[in-house]
Amino acid sequence: MKVDVAFVPEAFRTDDGVGRTVVIVDVLRASTTIITALAHGAEKVVPVATTTQAGEEAARYPKAKMLLCGERGSVRIPGFDLGNSPNDYGEETVRSKTLVYTSTNGSQMIVKSAGAATLLVAGFVNGKAVVERLRDGKHDCLIACSGTNGGFSLEDAVCAGFFVDGLVDAPHGQSLELGDGAKAARVLYDCFSKDLLTMAKEAVQGRILVSLGMEADIPLCVSVDSTDVVPVLSDGALIRSG
Amino acid sequence: MKVDVAFVPEAFRTDDGVGRTVVIVDVLRASTTIITALAHGAEKVVPVATTTQAGEEAARYPKAKMLLCGERGSVRIPGFDLGNSPNDYGEETVRSKTLVYTSTNGSQMIVKSAGAATLLVAGFVNGKAVVERLRDGKHDCLIACSGTNGGFSLEDAVCAGFFVDGLVDAPHGQSLELGDGAKAARVLYDCFSKDLLTMAKEAVQGRILVSLGMEADIPLCVSVDSTDVVPVLSDGALIRSG
Repeated sequence: MKVDVAFVPEAFRTDDGVGRTVVIVDVLRASTTIITALAHGAEKVVPVATTTQAGEEAARYPKAKMLLCGERGSVRIPGFDLGNSPNDYGEETVRSKTLVYTSTNGSQMIVKSAGAATLLVAGFVNGKAVVERLRDGKHDCLIACSGTNGGFSLEDAVCAGFFVDGLVDAPHGQSLELGDGAKAARVLYDCFSKDLLTMAKEAVQGRILVSLGMEADIPLCVSVDSTDVVPVLSDGALIRSG
Repeated sequence: MKVDVAFVPEAFRTDDGVGRTVVIVDVLRASTTIITALAHGAEKVVPVATTTQAGEEAARYPKAKMLLCGERGSVRIPGFDLGNSPNDYGEETVRSKTLVYTSTNGSQMIVKSAGAATLLVAGFVNGKAVVERLRDGKHDCLIACSGTNGGFSLEDAVCAGFFVDGLVDAPHGQSLELGDGAKAARVLYDCFSKDLLTMAKEAVQGRILVSLGMEADIPLCVSVDSTDVVPVLSDGALIRSG
């Protein structure tokens, strides 16, 4: 099995996912928020690219069963029910609801990767469960980092390395074929794994969140293996797999 | 001073260079070849994006004073005088010549970055000289990796980390503002610096060169500080700075 990492969205082309398992990573915060929502009982999360599409998609669901969710510039979109803080996606809020979701980086990557053989959403919070699922997979694997505003983001790269490390350390992991990006990500994980919180707070996106008063989201986003829920794309919506 | 690294060409937008010093890295092999050519007395290297443009540009120079140089798919372009092996750019071949040069990755990045405040071409071979020049610079610095066929390449990222490391280790280096890419590149350099040759041979582009029988180029491309020539872009051509 080949394993590679695409560090920035522009390096990931729509057809890169064809025939592969694509793992979308946006630690701060789209991945974490989507995983948290499904772990807390949301029925599904429908990722869309634009706020206009979000409105159109939302109109397809009964209002009592739907939440309109997302951010631009890390801040809740005016008129939306929820922003992008995983802390807002508690069970009492999201249980049995359909969440229509758009974010600056993560939801764009999911929409762009919809042609993948299998599309998973991953973060530190479901890391072990993601690795177990990838181990059992039949396809080559591309871990696609969402980045920050089109650029490289350290926390996504380190998280990608977490998955590579988990795969290599598994039985037969030494026979995996690692691309340059996968090798690099693993080195980054090895360097930063001892203090993920400081790494994330000092990364570009972490500093943006701190400056916006959203620092409380960061510990949750680096809370390793806090759930075994792995969102998987099915018929245009992310649902719990397992 | 801010220092950052763009790991893949697609993450580098043409206007990213405006007001900054842009350092173009393509270890295997465009950077190394261009530096070697100027170190061996070539008058200038004119980078162009396409083979057609190479032909048009070449027509502007007396034939005896010009060499048409470059590769596609790592192999010399049919009808061109030289390919992209730095070993072919000896003093007896290139002295006092104008080299019209096109390559798959590196020359594209140079052309794309022509709007930079200052554009330098850098590799392991002129590393110390590049760092010294950057230290004295007034502009923020963006190290732009050329990558391999649009994707991340390990040897370019490690080389970018070499420059970041040199800048941070200099007097007042601790006051530099490192972007996420710069932090990551420094970690990669720290990990791979002890055996650059193995790193480069086992990277994707290194393996391509080995498969094409060009393995002999690789040691030359990781020969740290073998020259103090730093190519700088001036009026559309790369010349020796000093």
